[in-house]
Amino acid sequence: MPLVIDIHTHVYPPAYMEMLRARKTVPYVHDPSNNKDPRLVILSSDDDPSIPIDQRGRPVDSSYWDIEVKLAFMRQHGINCSVISLANPWLDFIEPNEAQMWAERINNNLEETCAGVNKAADIGNTLTLDQKETLFAMGALPLSAPSSDIVVNEIKRLKTLPHLRGVIMGTSGLGKGLDDATLDPVWQALQDTDTLMFLHPHYGLPDEAFGGPDATSRYGHVFPLALGFPLETTIAVTRMLLSCVFDRFPRLKILLAHSGGTLPFLAGRIDSCIHHERKFISGGGDVQGPQRSVWDVLKTNIYLDAVVYGKPGLEAAMAASGSDRLFFGTDHPFFPPLDSKEGDWPSVTTNYKAIHATFDTNSEMVAEVLGGNAARILDLK
Amino acid sequence: MPLVIDIHTHVYPPAYMEMLRARKTVPYVHDPSNNKDPRLVILSSDDDPSIPIDQRGRPVDSSYWDIEVKLAFMRQHGINCSVISLANPWLDFIEPNEAQMWAERINNNLEETCAGVNKAADIGNTLTLDQKETLFAMGALPLSAPSSDIVVNEIKRLKTLPHLRGVIMGTSGLGKGLDDATLDPVWQALQDTDTLMFLHPHYGLPDEAFGGPDATSRYGHVFPLALGFPLETTIAVTRMLLSCVFDRFPRLKILLAHSGGTLPFLAGRIDSCIHHERKFISGGGDVQGPQRSVWDVLKTNIYLDAVVYGKPGLEAAMAASGSDRLFFGTDHPFFPPLDSKEGDWPSVTTNYKAIHATFDTNSEMVAEVLGGNAARILDLK
Repeated sequence: MPLVIDIHTHVYPPAYMEMLRARKTVPYVHDPSNNKDPRLVILSSDDDPSIPIDQRGRPVDSSYWDIEVKLAFMRQHGINCSVISLANPWLDFIEPNEAQMWAERINNNLEETCAGVNKAADIGNTLTLDQKETLFAMGALPLSAPSSDIVVNEIKRLKTLPHLRGVIMGTSGLGKGLDDATLDPVWQALQDTDTLMFLHPHYGLPDEAFGGPDATSRYGHVFPLALGFPLETTIAVTRMLLSCVFDRFPRLKILLAHSGGTLPFLAGRIDSCIHHERKFISGGGDVQGPQRSVWDVLKTNIYLDAVVYGKPGLEAAMAASGSDRLFFGTDHPFFPPLDSKEGDWPSVTTNYKAIHATFDTNSEMVAEVLGGNAARILDLK
Repeated sequence: MPLVIDIHTHVYPPAYMEMLRARKTVPYVHDPSNNKDPRLVILSSDDDPSIPIDQRGRPVDSSYWDIEVKLAFMRQHGINCSVISLANPWLDFIEPNEAQMWAERINNNLEETCAGVNKAADIGNTLTLDQKETLFAMGALPLSAPSSDIVVNEIKRLKTLPHLRGVIMGTSGLGKGLDDATLDPVWQALQDTDTLMFLHPHYGLPDEAFGGPDATSRYGHVFPLALGFPLETTIAVTRMLLSCVFDRFPRLKILLAHSGGTLPFLAGRIDSCIHHERKFISGGGDVQGPQRSVWDVLKTNIYLDAVVYGKPGLEAAMAASGSDRLFFGTDHPFFPPLDSKEGDWPSVTTNYKAIHATFDTNSEMVAEVLGGNAARILDLK
């Protein structure tokens, strides 16, 4: 059996769930009066007063907070190792003076969870990664803290935790998006510590983009999740590119969720529009445009998960970044089967099938994407 | 030399330019006091009062309205045949009672332009398409007219004009987007007359999606054109899909601009989100979701241009729809070189190179994409 590493898999640790339960505004958790599964309300479009509160958001079960359920999911789907991360919206909404405390609490909890599982899996430390069941984690950052120093310190502290292998971050940065110059100390710290940043969407696009609130009530989560999320990621990384972050920090390492949102597909158009932009000095204007091309960034700074549910997306991801920069992922515990809790999850098997369909004549490439790349780049062993 | 057909190439006929000159709100044309090229202000983000009016929008030259300039562009880039269409925002903004008149005027003008050029090119009617220089056109629709009957009648009338080969349409439909049920008579007429609809973006996304108006002033047109346009197309066709247009009208033929916006890349995620949507009957809800899958629609109803400026996008387009549904295009006269008016346009050569890079071992496929597919599907001869 090949080594399979899941790089895109989330948790809401019990302490985080309790904190959400105490809240009444997005994000929050509500326990329905009928003793059914709690409702997780994290998207602003979910918090619709016309929907009864017991039906708002989505039902969540123990797969969201119980690590034993994740381990069972891994066994069922042939996954040896998961790199778990806090799910959106992370700590983006935390009161500034509590951000550091919550980041330390969550990250220490992730470290303990991984250490406990890994110790049980391999007491003598003699097994290789494909022979055991292991967890590693990406840390959360206290981005709402009063000073970026607190963020920088947490990035450095994460390097002292043995099972932490990067950080997960949303697209709001310190609150003003990823082209905000006050993020420079954070980029510097990520680059200096050689920390992989997993860039993940949460905020989507304004409802108006999809035809207003009516679209949400007609089509549920399809627009925000299928189109809002990938576009948000694409916009965020393009803001980094256009504000010359990759010129100033050429050794940043960024893993983009959902195969880059749409970045591999749109890279050519972005590149062409930059070359044809009259605002930029290169086009006769007075704004410094990016010096490094999006193609260079895609092959140097960017890693992509293979969570794109089809061969066309994976072909584009491979052509843009290369098969040596692609990682298998599941997005667990999101997208569970709606009909039955038994059996394989179609959201996972679709991605397995896409990897096999794309690389079918090259079993080495399949092995690299399923686990080899992640083990090498994240130093998992 | 292979037959090369440009399926994505726009004009603003002189009468349309004059009409824009008479306007003071978007869209409009302004003649600067310094006798320089007129300024075309068609995007709402361009109409920024903080920018001097002589510098708003973009400069346009005779390539936008003089068909001789387009013919010279075609010769320079090895294009035998162009299927010209009115550029955005078409007739979307016309007063309802003038819509029919403008549609007829524009479409008759397009017919006369094509007839004139083709007659001059081939008096004896003995040359094949690759031996001469020809034009065909896609018609504009009076979508703001008081009744959809007027739109339907124009669709039928276009079939009587010998050089018209389809219609071009934006994403607003009759004003409420493409999931508006009152569009059904239009879809019915397009299907009944076997008319190809070229779906093209114009409105982009709200500024807020890119970080507010500041982003536009920092990065010029990069966000609205590189990301807003393709997302608008993707959202529009997804609204058609989710509202079951392709279930009700299974023989619609739609050409998507810019290789589908991002549809080929996101098709898998759209499909997965539909299958996981609790609102839809299939997920336990009460809304009828689409019966035909996006994969089926991509291979049955959708055609894509190859205006995607890179191999990754083209690989995805080919995997999603097939090389027999891809058409070469230029987007002329948009994206002219900024440095010199001489020489080949990089916006065109980039797309030629991407086609050759993607299909390099298969010269038959190259020929199909460059011209064979368009000649066959649009019946050009």
